[in-house]
Amino acid sequence: MQGQNQQQAYDRGITIFSPDGRLYQVEYAREAVKRGTASIGVRTADGVVLAVDKRIRSPLMERDSVEKIHKADDHIGIASAGHVADARQLIDFSRRQAQVNRLRYDEAIGVETLTKQVTDHVQQYTQIGGARPFGVALMIAGVSDGEPSLYETDPSGTPYEWKALAIGADRGDIREYLEANYDEEMTLEAGVGLALKALESVAEGGLTPEGVGIATIPVEDAEFHELTDAETEAYLSDLDLLATDEDDATADDDTDTTADEGDTDDDSVDE
Amino acid sequence: MQGQNQQQAYDRGITIFSPDGRLYQVEYAREAVKRGTASIGVRTADGVVLAVDKRIRSPLMERDSVEKIHKADDHIGIASAGHVADARQLIDFSRRQAQVNRLRYDEAIGVETLTKQVTDHVQQYTQIGGARPFGVALMIAGVSDGEPSLYETDPSGTPYEWKALAIGADRGDIREYLEANYDEEMTLEAGVGLALKALESVAEGGLTPEGVGIATIPVEDAEFHELTDAETEAYLSDLDLLATDEDDATADDDTDTTADEGDTDDDSVDE
Amino acid sequence: MQGQNQQQAYDRGITIFSPDGRLYQVEYAREAVKRGTASIGVRTADGVVLAVDKRIRSPLMERDSVEKIHKADDHIGIASAGHVADARQLIDFSRRQAQVNRLRYDEAIGVETLTKQVTDHVQQYTQIGGARPFGVALMIAGVSDGEPSLYETDPSGTPYEWKALAIGADRGDIREYLEANYDEEMTLEAGVGLALKALESVAEGGLTPEGVGIATIPVEDAEFHELTDAETEAYLSDLDLLATDEDDATADDDTDTTADEGDTDDDSVDE
Amino acid sequence: MQGQNQQQAYDRGITIFSPDGRLYQVEYAREAVKRGTASIGVRTADGVVLAVDKRIRSPLMERDSVEKIHKADDHIGIASAGHVADARQLIDFSRRQAQVNRLRYDEAIGVETLTKQVTDHVQQYTQIGGARPFGVALMIAGVSDGEPSLYETDPSGTPYEWKALAIGADRGDIREYLEANYDEEMTLEAGVGLALKALESVAEGGLTPEGVGIATIPVEDAEFHELTDAETEAYLSDLDLLATDEDDATADDDTDTTADEGDTDDDSVDE
Amino acid sequence: MQGQNQQQAYDRGITIFSPDGRLYQVEYAREAVKRGTASIGVRTADGVVLAVDKRIRSPLMERDSVEKIHKADDHIGIASAGHVADARQLIDFSRRQAQVNRLRYDEAIGVETLTKQVTDHVQQYTQIGGARPFGVALMIAGVSDGEPSLYETDPSGTPYEWKALAIGADRGDIREYLEANYDEEMTLEAGVGLALKALESVAEGGLTPEGVGIATIPVEDAEFHELTDAETEAYLSDLDLLATDEDDATADDDTDTTADEGDTDDDSVDE
Amino acid sequence: MQGQNQQQAYDRGITIFSPDGRLYQVEYAREAVKRGTASIGVRTADGVVLAVDKRIRSPLMERDSVEKIHKADDHIGIASAGHVADARQLIDFSRRQAQVNRLRYDEAIGVETLTKQVTDHVQQYTQIGGARPFGVALMIAGVSDGEPSLYETDPSGTPYEWKALAIGADRGDIREYLEANYDEEMTLEAGVGLALKALESVAEGGLTPEGVGIATIPVEDAEFHELTDAETEAYLSDLDLLATDEDDATADDDTDTTADEGDTDDDSVDE
Amino acid sequence: MQGQNQQQAYDRGITIFSPDGRLYQVEYAREAVKRGTASIGVRTADGVVLAVDKRIRSPLMERDSVEKIHKADDHIGIASAGHVADARQLIDFSRRQAQVNRLRYDEAIGVETLTKQVTDHVQQYTQIGGARPFGVALMIAGVSDGEPSLYETDPSGTPYEWKALAIGADRGDIREYLEANYDEEMTLEAGVGLALKALESVAEGGLTPEGVGIATIPVEDAEFHELTDAETEAYLSDLDLLATDEDDATADDDTDTTADEGDTDDDSVDE
Repeated sequence: MQGQNQQQAYDRGITIFSPDGRLYQVEYAREAVKRGTASIGVRTADGVVLAVDKRIRSPLMERDSVEKIHKADDHIGIASAGHVADARQLIDFSRRQAQVNRLRYDEAIGVETLTKQVTDHVQQYTQIGGARPFGVALMIAGVSDGEPSLYETDPSGTPYEWKALAIGADRGDIREYLEANYDEEMTLEAGVGLALKALESVAEGGLTPEGVGIATIPVEDAEFHELTDAETEAYLSDLDLLATDEDDATADDDTDTTADEGDTDDDSVDE
Repeated sequence: MQGQNQQQAYDRGITIFSPDGRLYQVEYAREAVKRGTASIGVRTADGVVLAVDKRIRSPLMERDSVEKIHKADDHIGIASAGHVADARQLIDFSRRQAQVNRLRYDEAIGVETLTKQVTDHVQQYTQIGGARPFGVALMIAGVSDGEPSLYETDPSGTPYEWKALAIGADRGDIREYLEANYDEEMTLEAGVGLALKALESVAEGGLTPEGVGIATIPVEDAEFHELTDAETEAYLSDLDLLATDEDDATADDDTDTTADEGDTDDDSVDE
Repeated sequence: MQGQNQQQAYDRGITIFSPDGRLYQVEYAREAVKRGTASIGVRTADGVVLAVDKRIRSPLMERDSVEKIHKADDHIGIASAGHVADARQLIDFSRRQAQVNRLRYDEAIGVETLTKQVTDHVQQYTQIGGARPFGVALMIAGVSDGEPSLYETDPSGTPYEWKALAIGADRGDIREYLEANYDEEMTLEAGVGLALKALESVAEGGLTPEGVGIATIPVEDAEFHELTDAETEAYLSDLDLLATDEDDATADDDTDTTADEGDTDDDSVDE
Repeated sequence: MQGQNQQQAYDRGITIFSPDGRLYQVEYAREAVKRGTASIGVRTADGVVLAVDKRIRSPLMERDSVEKIHKADDHIGIASAGHVADARQLIDFSRRQAQVNRLRYDEAIGVETLTKQVTDHVQQYTQIGGARPFGVALMIAGVSDGEPSLYETDPSGTPYEWKALAIGADRGDIREYLEANYDEEMTLEAGVGLALKALESVAEGGLTPEGVGIATIPVEDAEFHELTDAETEAYLSDLDLLATDEDDATADDDTDTTADEGDTDDDSVDE
Repeated sequence: MQGQNQQQAYDRGITIFSPDGRLYQVEYAREAVKRGTASIGVRTADGVVLAVDKRIRSPLMERDSVEKIHKADDHIGIASAGHVADARQLIDFSRRQAQVNRLRYDEAIGVETLTKQVTDHVQQYTQIGGARPFGVALMIAGVSDGEPSLYETDPSGTPYEWKALAIGADRGDIREYLEANYDEEMTLEAGVGLALKALESVAEGGLTPEGVGIATIPVEDAEFHELTDAETEAYLSDLDLLATDEDDATADDDTDTTADEGDTDDDSVDE
Repeated sequence: MQGQNQQQAYDRGITIFSPDGRLYQVEYAREAVKRGTASIGVRTADGVVLAVDKRIRSPLMERDSVEKIHKADDHIGIASAGHVADARQLIDFSRRQAQVNRLRYDEAIGVETLTKQVTDHVQQYTQIGGARPFGVALMIAGVSDGEPSLYETDPSGTPYEWKALAIGADRGDIREYLEANYDEEMTLEAGVGLALKALESVAEGGLTPEGVGIATIPVEDAEFHELTDAETEAYLSDLDLLATDEDDATADDDTDTTADEGDTDDDSVDE
Repeated sequence: MQGQNQQQAYDRGITIFSPDGRLYQVEYAREAVKRGTASIGVRTADGVVLAVDKRIRSPLMERDSVEKIHKADDHIGIASAGHVADARQLIDFSRRQAQVNRLRYDEAIGVETLTKQVTDHVQQYTQIGGARPFGVALMIAGVSDGEPSLYETDPSGTPYEWKALAIGADRGDIREYLEANYDEEMTLEAGVGLALKALESVAEGGLTPEGVGIATIPVEDAEFHELTDAETEAYLSDLDLLATDEDDATADDDTDTTADEGDTDDDSVDE
């Protein structure tokens, strides 16, 4: 009880430091990220893979409505986890930065450059009053100068570069799977396979082509590609990850069950 | 009691994160949506249908006073649920965006484009201090490039695309009805029928032409049409949904009874 | 006690949502409206009637000092209930809008158009921080294009169109009287009679010409007319509503007695 | 105790509504008015009278230092009660408005026009954040187009027109005296007499020429006149209201005794 | 205890009204004035006198460092009591106003005019948010058009005109002494004597030339003069007010002893 | 408990003084610095050394992602400890200042000059409202006019010059080691050795080339150099500091274990 | 406990008055001054002396890093005590003012003029919201027009002129020593001696040349001089104040021991 009171004192109003040097509003924003469904990124020698859980809550919802993978520029894709409306703001910001770079320097923006422009923007919302932090994490994947790279931005505005990572629900379990199975020299196809197997490792009953979104940016053409359902199905079939029951394409929402009892189906955090 | 105190700590002042990553002000704004009367949208192969409960509380109120369906542009209709005055702001915003698009690009605005302009606007009210979120959800329906589409915007500023959906009171029950009975290949007329039957499934004693508002945007002409009472009555009669007693055109307010005891008849949330 | 504490949490500072989706500051502003004396509006086939209780607290106060009916433009009258100083702001706003319309479009402003300009203005005070909502409701009555109409604006910024309505004290009882006795086809004179009888139904001891204010906007000339005392007296006499004792022209303040014990005679809410 | 806690919740920060629709900061500002010494206004057929209690606390204070009656323009006088420094702001505002009117329209400002400009100004301080309401009431008296008139402005920004009224301390008792003795057809001289007798009715031991301030604006010349001590003494002598003991020219401060125990002699509320 | 809690509610944040119509922040600012050492003003037929207690706390402090009497313009002197840094702001403001008057109108500013410009400035700090009131009172003394006058400004922004007054510590006792001994027809020299005797009446052990500051503005030349130590000593000697022990030139700080226990020697309130 | 309550009172809202003259928000920001991993600086006769702990939490994270040493200009390096996103802001600020200096004065910025520009910038965030302090400390090392120098900036905005220092975790133990072993006349190579030995003194199980970052700015060329892994390994091998087990390149996070129980792996404070 | 609660009420948010007329934020800022190490100023017939305790906490810190004496202009030196980063702001402000004076008037700024510009600047931070007061006191010493002078500025923005004074830790004891031994006619050399003896009176174990900073501004050349270590050592040796043990050049921090238990070594208040 006492600890709780103490904690509350640092939550109100603007983002300030707690006695142990933490920024609670930023940490709470990370909780919003964890409440989102999982997104996985894998960097291979041949390119970068983004794979997301895009199962939908209702069969009446349009699958394309679940925005988890976005094309930021020809050569850059972004996957998000957390507060969807916030993610949209940062995706728009990223696209504008990419466009500005083309206009100003007549060349494609670097993946790292874009990442740091995003994190600088995000950091401002953690230090200057009058607004809350962004409740979303991004994976920014792309190919610059022939080199594939994969970055993460978090609600504090810190950029990280990864070989492979997971954000959102079950990120701990997925990361363990990735650490155990990742091989820096794997092909892009193997990367897709690893991402799908990692995603399946936390899903119950297998995956469906409709419940998964995959994008790749190969080194070869440095272009963002989203896989068709048929392509995804081929992967899943090859890897023996296909769900036996089509209904599993609808999210079982196990991530949110304790928080969302009853009818509080909060669709605004990506499911 | 303790939980309550804890919760209160995140309600005051501006929109900030709770320890579990929620934005309470946004969730409370959703409650305002739930307190509104039901609105239903159905997308068919031939066009999109919007149907709303527009029963009125007093026989002295003008029926047209219950603004639940709005024409945003020639080819786009919007239905709302929640705080009426807030809805008006977003409808006006939508109309201006549609006009600007015509002036600037000399063409009709896309349904998805408009939806995302609305949600970007709504998101700002959840992140920047000095204002509260919008207490309203919209269904934006229209036909762009010959394709019918149906979108939802919620108080968090998240856009969703649906085949069919319900917002406002009884949305859970109506959605179940829609999921059980929706057929993507149905005709526009069948879509009107489905919407009315879904609306009737939560109404007691049947529907009246005066208590229901219907609009369609057929693919054929891509024009927003509001049904006349005679047209609505023909549908209701054909479907055997006509109320036996005319008095039911007056809302029984069962949605609000626990909250609005006594004389707190809050007309500002659409009834 | 607990409920009270909980409620207080949403009252302070700016206008924010309560957990059940309410805007308490707006609801409290409605209480200011209820504390005002009654105003009645009746729309007839021949025109619109506004009738107000303008009894005064002291015989030394000038009767014209009780501002309850205002001419907004040649063809539009406005009656108010609630916080008088706030009403004045909205009346001034309405007059400016009417003038601007004449200057810009060279024609009289529509009654509905004016109403929605007022409600859009009022809504801003419920969403943007740094100010409180308006503590007043208006009835806007007029004739546009030969059609009489009657609108209400409330503190939330919601517009309503009515055939007949009451705002302020005893609004529930008066509305019941109106619902029981209203006839859409009645003449303007019958409308004045209905309004006076409805007003008398909640007054004790009858009405006096001085204690009542009446204005009409007939379809015939579409001009705002205020009745003289003689004209009012003729109506009252014909309807047998004349008070037997002249002293009743002074308000008995029964509306405020519980709240205004002792010397807190709050004249700033219209009496 | 509980009621007190509840009340406090609506006092802090800016001017907001209480659950029963009151604006506490405005009501507290009215208390500042009541703590001021009495001012009386009387409108007669021949002109308007302002009479004020201007007894001083110390014989060392200059009598002219007690600013209670002010000339706003040639034809308008203003008496105040309440917070002196706030009164000065509104007097200055009134003078500027009167000057602007002469410059812009080449004619004297109407008494009602000026009153409403003052109340509109005052209302802003009750609705917009960042400032407190004005803690002062004014009586604005003057002659426009040959007609005498007398207005009151209160801290809420509401204008009232009166035949005769009192503001400040003992306003209830004085109003009763005025209601019992006022005659609309009385001469200006009789009006001065009524005001002095009303003032004497709440004073102990009679009045002195030095302890009273009187101004008139006769219809005849429509000019603001302040009475000399000799003129005042003649009135008092004729009316047999002269104090027997000169010391009574010093205020006995009975208004503030409970609040101002000890040395808290708050001179900033007019005594 | 309860009263204390209640009081605290009106102290926080900005200057707002308490339920009994008081402005606590202004009243607390007056306490800062009372904590300052005494200043005395006396208006005589021949001119005005300002006398201040300028004993110093440490023999190492420069006497001129105790700024209590300031020349605002050739013909105007100002003495202050209270928060020294705040006093400096108002003195600077006064000097600028005096200069502007000379530049704009080519004549010396009137004493009353200057006073009211100061009080209007001070009042703003009691009504507009974002700043605290000034914690200082001024005595503004001067000769305009051959007439000597003496004004006081307090933290509320109220101007008072006095024949003689005291501000700061012991003001109650000194005022009693002045009331008992003041004679409006006294000469300027007698006025100096009265001021010194009044000052001595609350000092223990007599006065020293170094512990007293005296300035006069005679009607004859309308020029601000500060007395030299020799002149002051002559006065003290003639009046038999000379301290027998030189050490008394150091303030004994009895004003602050209860508040400033231990080492909290707050030099920023004039001693 | 009491002490805790007292402390909380000074944490909320903006940076204000506590009764004992402390700025808690600044002190809490220092805690964020302590939670960062260690950085060490050593100034020698031949140049300056920066050495940092850059072990990573996951083998999947890119080592270059751990930004602890930054090149601010050709001749200046900066190492940071604390909140990574904040550090990035100050590094960017430093680079801009360095660039501006070159453009404006056509010469390299002085190390001390740059340090003071940073601390002036940081100080503003501790005094002006609307933002929180920076949660990061910097070591700014460089060579100006042939002289090596090493500065520290802390969250209060105070600049310090050091011969050798440590910031971040274990700074106390490392400083003791440095005090015991520092020699002002040591060579740059010896400085690198001292820094590594100091770093090893608080690490368990030795160091790895991948877990350590080293940069030098020799007096000879006044250029910032980062050591390659091979160079670092050579040093470690020579000094017999090489970890026996490669896995130790992954941070054991002992710094954060009490705070980061479970899954709160806060990567935004440098690890 | 009760007193503590009461006190807290006036600490939060902006600088406001307490019921007894105090400005707590200003008083707490004074506590920051007291936590700084001692600085001493002595004015003699031949010039002014500034002497400071500049012992350092760690032998690894550069002595010049302890900024306690600053040259503001050729003829003015400033010593500070308190919050170092705040001091830097005021020193920079002073230097700019001095430069502006030279540019605008082509002459050196007066010592008093500069002091008052600083205090006016400091006062603003105690009255206007949105910032905290400066947590530092300055001694401004210089020679203008052949006259030596010594001023103090405190956190309230009050200027004081002194013959000799101490600020920072042990100021009470040092002031007693100065009062007992100061002679206005002493030579500059005697002044240096007095300052050193006063400093030694509160130091344990004597002084070292490295632990003391001395500057003089002689009347003769009106130029700021800082003594070399050799010059200081000569003084200390002559006065027999030399510490017997060199280690004492490191501060023993006795000032802060109660507050800074454990590792909270707050270097940002000058030690």
